[in-house]
Amino acid sequence: MPHSNTHHEVLIVVFQVRHFPATSEKPATGPELAVLLWQRALDPEAGTWSLPGGWLRDDEDLTTSARRQLAEKVDVREVSHLEQLSVFSAPHRIPGPRTIASTYLGLVPSTSDPQLPDDTAWHPVAHLPEMSFDHGVMVDNARARLAAKLSYTNIAFGLAPAEFAMSELRDIYCAALGYQVDATNLQRVLKRRNVLTATGTTAPPGRTGGRPAALYRFTDSNLRVTDEFAALRPPV
Amino acid sequence: MPHSNTHHEVLIVVFQVRHFPATSEKPATGPELAVLLWQRALDPEAGTWSLPGGWLRDDEDLTTSARRQLAEKVDVREVSHLEQLSVFSAPHRIPGPRTIASTYLGLVPSTSDPQLPDDTAWHPVAHLPEMSFDHGVMVDNARARLAAKLSYTNIAFGLAPAEFAMSELRDIYCAALGYQVDATNLQRVLKRRNVLTATGTTAPPGRTGGRPAALYRFTDSNLRVTDEFAALRPPV
Repeated sequence: MPHSNTHHEVLIVVFQVRHFPATSEKPATGPELAVLLWQRALDPEAGTWSLPGGWLRDDEDLTTSARRQLAEKVDVREVSHLEQLSVFSAPHRIPGPRTIASTYLGLVPSTSDPQLPDDTAWHPVAHLPEMSFDHGVMVDNARARLAAKLSYTNIAFGLAPAEFAMSELRDIYCAALGYQVDATNLQRVLKRRNVLTATGTTAPPGRTGGRPAALYRFTDSNLRVTDEFAALRPPV
Repeated sequence: MPHSNTHHEVLIVVFQVRHFPATSEKPATGPELAVLLWQRALDPEAGTWSLPGGWLRDDEDLTTSARRQLAEKVDVREVSHLEQLSVFSAPHRIPGPRTIASTYLGLVPSTSDPQLPDDTAWHPVAHLPEMSFDHGVMVDNARARLAAKLSYTNIAFGLAPAEFAMSELRDIYCAALGYQVDATNLQRVLKRRNVLTATGTTAPPGRTGGRPAALYRFTDSNLRVTDEFAALRPPV
């Protein structure tokens, strides 16, 4: 039999690539990877910022719980991708009875601008506020998973608009990865892997400057591994 | 506050590529992917086969628990790789009080032959016995994760001997994936990705038949993503 009971919570790391206005501390930059956080009004750790989430209910599994709890913060129709990440299980990770946390990764397209509750805001991942408990580590963990998946899957579909010029997609990759990516090289690799489909249309003049830019969309809107190299592909 | 307490168990899907002798039902084949299972002596579901594991203790996190529980079945020094997989959280997945299961993937090199308790045996993944509860789904889930990771990481280091001829590595990939893989193509891709290092020696004559085969080893014995395509590589 188990040695004692544990509580179980679900926490969701929701990312979106967003523009942030300039502040006295930071000049305006290009689009940045942002994470959705809410500020704790009460102790423990009043004033610190937390990931959205909460207790798992008796009648729901983790994914159902993640969707329900997200719905309390944002319209879940704006969440284009949701997947299980890691479990955080250190015995004393938060005060009180032992609580195990299952984390999820959620992605919101850059064109969404969900209504947020008063206690909730987007924060640049590169400049996190004071985070509650182990939630900062959870954000780091989720960002690392996102960066890895950008290289071997089509996961950028979750962050991109429905249609985009290649320069817009490049900006999204740069923001998510945190370093510069060459648009021509990115286009070459994604086309070879059949990740993108040309829409046959171009962006309105002036939207990206210069000559009209061809528009693309992601071929799939479900996650798939795009790097099944030839040797490992199953026979057709 | 949480709606009620839950129990938490850790279950480990341990894979090894092994040879199985011929039986009256099945002729001898090449090496096959096998999973470590133990047979339940008592109800619930007496006689069915289960994954190794058990309850999470108060003073340990999940990974510590996975290593401890594996040690009761096999010498954990023989486990070359261990990583967290998924959480199974359906409210009534097993009889009795609600129990959430965290699963792990464990890999054992094909050259190991760990001592096993009397109730424990290796089973070919392609011919599983009657499985307990949702443990069959857990094996399927782990195998899918292994197959995906074989294409974009160096995870095969966990299944391979310390040194191997390319034909031996090909057999391991074939067994793990469940379909034929061409050794020349495999070698070309793994070399381009700097996954393998030639040892500079050859296999003793006769071990693989024909002329002496060059031996290789995995360059790393920790998991890494090998498909960071050029566009996405961070600046050096």
